[in-house]
Amino acid sequence: MTATLLERRYQTLGPYSPLFYDEPLEFVAAHDVWLTDARGEQYLDAYNNVPQVGHCHPRIIAAMADQAGRLNIHTRYLNNHVVDYAEQLLGTFPPELNRVLFTNSGSEANDLAFRMVRQATGASGVLVSDFSYHGHTSYLAGLTTGLRTGEALAAEVRPIRIPDMDRTTLSEADLLAASFAEVDAAIESLDRAGYGLAGFLFDSLFSTEGLNTLPAGYITGVIDRVHAAGGLVVADEVQSGFGRTGTHFWGHQRIGAAPDFVTLGKPMGNGHPIGGVVTSSEMLDHFGPHNNYFNTFAGTPVSAVVGSTVLSILQDEQLPQKATILGASIKESLEKLRAEYPFIGPIKGTGLFFGFEVFDDEARQTPSAGRTKQLVEAMKRNHVLISRIGRDDSVLKIRPPLAFRSEHADRLLDALKISLKEV
Amino acid sequence: MTATLLERRYQTLGPYSPLFYDEPLEFVAAHDVWLTDARGEQYLDAYNNVPQVGHCHPRIIAAMADQAGRLNIHTRYLNNHVVDYAEQLLGTFPPELNRVLFTNSGSEANDLAFRMVRQATGASGVLVSDFSYHGHTSYLAGLTTGLRTGEALAAEVRPIRIPDMDRTTLSEADLLAASFAEVDAAIESLDRAGYGLAGFLFDSLFSTEGLNTLPAGYITGVIDRVHAAGGLVVADEVQSGFGRTGTHFWGHQRIGAAPDFVTLGKPMGNGHPIGGVVTSSEMLDHFGPHNNYFNTFAGTPVSAVVGSTVLSILQDEQLPQKATILGASIKESLEKLRAEYPFIGPIKGTGLFFGFEVFDDEARQTPSAGRTKQLVEAMKRNHVLISRIGRDDSVLKIRPPLAFRSEHADRLLDALKISLKEV
Repeated sequence: MTATLLERRYQTLGPYSPLFYDEPLEFVAAHDVWLTDARGEQYLDAYNNVPQVGHCHPRIIAAMADQAGRLNIHTRYLNNHVVDYAEQLLGTFPPELNRVLFTNSGSEANDLAFRMVRQATGASGVLVSDFSYHGHTSYLAGLTTGLRTGEALAAEVRPIRIPDMDRTTLSEADLLAASFAEVDAAIESLDRAGYGLAGFLFDSLFSTEGLNTLPAGYITGVIDRVHAAGGLVVADEVQSGFGRTGTHFWGHQRIGAAPDFVTLGKPMGNGHPIGGVVTSSEMLDHFGPHNNYFNTFAGTPVSAVVGSTVLSILQDEQLPQKATILGASIKESLEKLRAEYPFIGPIKGTGLFFGFEVFDDEARQTPSAGRTKQLVEAMKRNHVLISRIGRDDSVLKIRPPLAFRSEHADRLLDALKISLKEV
Repeated sequence: MTATLLERRYQTLGPYSPLFYDEPLEFVAAHDVWLTDARGEQYLDAYNNVPQVGHCHPRIIAAMADQAGRLNIHTRYLNNHVVDYAEQLLGTFPPELNRVLFTNSGSEANDLAFRMVRQATGASGVLVSDFSYHGHTSYLAGLTTGLRTGEALAAEVRPIRIPDMDRTTLSEADLLAASFAEVDAAIESLDRAGYGLAGFLFDSLFSTEGLNTLPAGYITGVIDRVHAAGGLVVADEVQSGFGRTGTHFWGHQRIGAAPDFVTLGKPMGNGHPIGGVVTSSEMLDHFGPHNNYFNTFAGTPVSAVVGSTVLSILQDEQLPQKATILGASIKESLEKLRAEYPFIGPIKGTGLFFGFEVFDDEARQTPSAGRTKQLVEAMKRNHVLISRIGRDDSVLKIRPPLAFRSEHADRLLDALKISLKEV
């Protein structure tokens, strides 16, 4: 049956749309942190961050259905729901980040943020990590360094290597100095080429890169340099936001960054398509008067009520707080596992986004894409969903819904113990 | 209360987000073709095309809530709903248009279509109407000619004037010849500049332009020229699709066009954020192998079930067929009104998207943005929602949900008769 469905999918969506695993999983139901496949088998979800508060959360479904039965209309008419939600969302930011433009996805959010950044600065140059992904629009394809696109890197983009204390022979001070020198050179290069510096775009977890362990002061140092050169800073919270990192509601706060723009996506609507750009009224004043910007689907009452319910559940169920405690406990258990398996690298991540690098050799010199892939497949056989990331495809990507609890962590660790023996 | 809400909106979304009317309307409920404002007043919706099958349609809400309670997950796992919907949607197209990529909005769809067009042709030049709007991404902002953006027109874009038989002193043959000459010159200019011709993007209703009355054979002639120059054709169905024009399910079919790409948006999910790009397997083969394209929210079970339900309702309630009959009847009534008011220009449009140009003078020489605006405001006082379009903001935009029935048409025409006396 799954084989037939796969063939029908190829004949409609085409054969290129990515699927996980050597043999794709077909899911038919989900609840909380569990997914059920077409054969009735249950899988523990330790991967999906879109259903941040858990799959099919009854409060979200009830709120969505209720609002969808009352009113769903664009923002060219007034409605209280979008304003209520905007106030609730902006309440999670410091007072200077006091405006939000809603979108339908993180891609739309990053694209819009850079329209604003370019117009505010009059410059076009961009600094971005040399192994990152921030969305699929034409503009963002030109900024993509971490996955395959048919477009060349745009001429006005300077990729910079994000330092990783786990992958260097340098001291922290030397790594920091070398990294800053690279940033300085990139900014100078943009200036010489006539692009100037418009902005710096980053995901504070550096998740595509493989959960880098940053030298202390790196991001704040880059931000100082960007601002000194007249550029603006965009923190992409699509991966790190909405309590994912545990200790801070927004990932950039964890590393002391004060961005000019914050972009939102994936977990914002727990699966309902919502994104957004948060900025200051001053930044908006550079853009608003010159652009008749309107987004048909964004900020409707249904999207607003769904987004608001997600925020309320995160608060009411204290999910970020729980993620801090549970994430720390899982990392402790992973440290113990590491002692048993010499091919496991340093334990990485924070809150409920964590993993470790997998090596070919006991000296941990050669990252192992192959063994990492085997581990992900073995976890699937053990009915736990995870994935892998990093420039060598060698870092485990464990990023469950924040509804994950200690019994699920035990299940995850048990499966990992079994799977590690198989690879 | 509305004043306070407006102030709260300015303090969160900012003051630039567009609002209709001198005094914005605040809506709190909607059903079928009726909206209820904060004072409990009922307004007939003769404007909104997103709720194509009517506001808050109970079948859509039931299907959405049911699916949201079962499973909502991205397409990296298999699920039958996205495939079922893709088959149903592709069934409305001729066999050569046999692939669909889902997105979250019409903007994402047009942006993605042009990533595909540029990669398939190896060229970057674009022909677009000189008064049009196709979305808000960075790339599409560079193609925008019909509303204010902070970006200059992109260097590789050639705006062409779409002919309008209602706005010319030329014969149909001469207008056609002049229009083709302009297209030929634009293609040559792109070639000389080294961009080559990637594609031609059009909305078959030319709704932003003001519902142009095309000379016979215009679009097919442009398409022949575009194909002869190696370019591809993108039909933007965000306005004209899903039965809006009555006689044909897709607007481009009404004017005999055979596009290489069709882009979908607004009415696709009746308010739920869905868009899409429909193309051939050959075109997809130019893009798929070179791009790890993935869209997190697009093609989820909830979006697929909602989109599928919209298609089923359009079919089950025979809304396009009804739109043909009702639209023709309304146009007849408008013709009668026109005989009474010399400042009314030719009646325009098809199906349930229609209007007429409003002039200052009885000789119908000077389009009247002012009188058109007064008419839209007068209709609001008479509790009917319409808007205005066109390069002179002088064409009435009447575009109700397809659930509009003859009693609503009577109400619309009554309000129009009263409003015309007031301007």
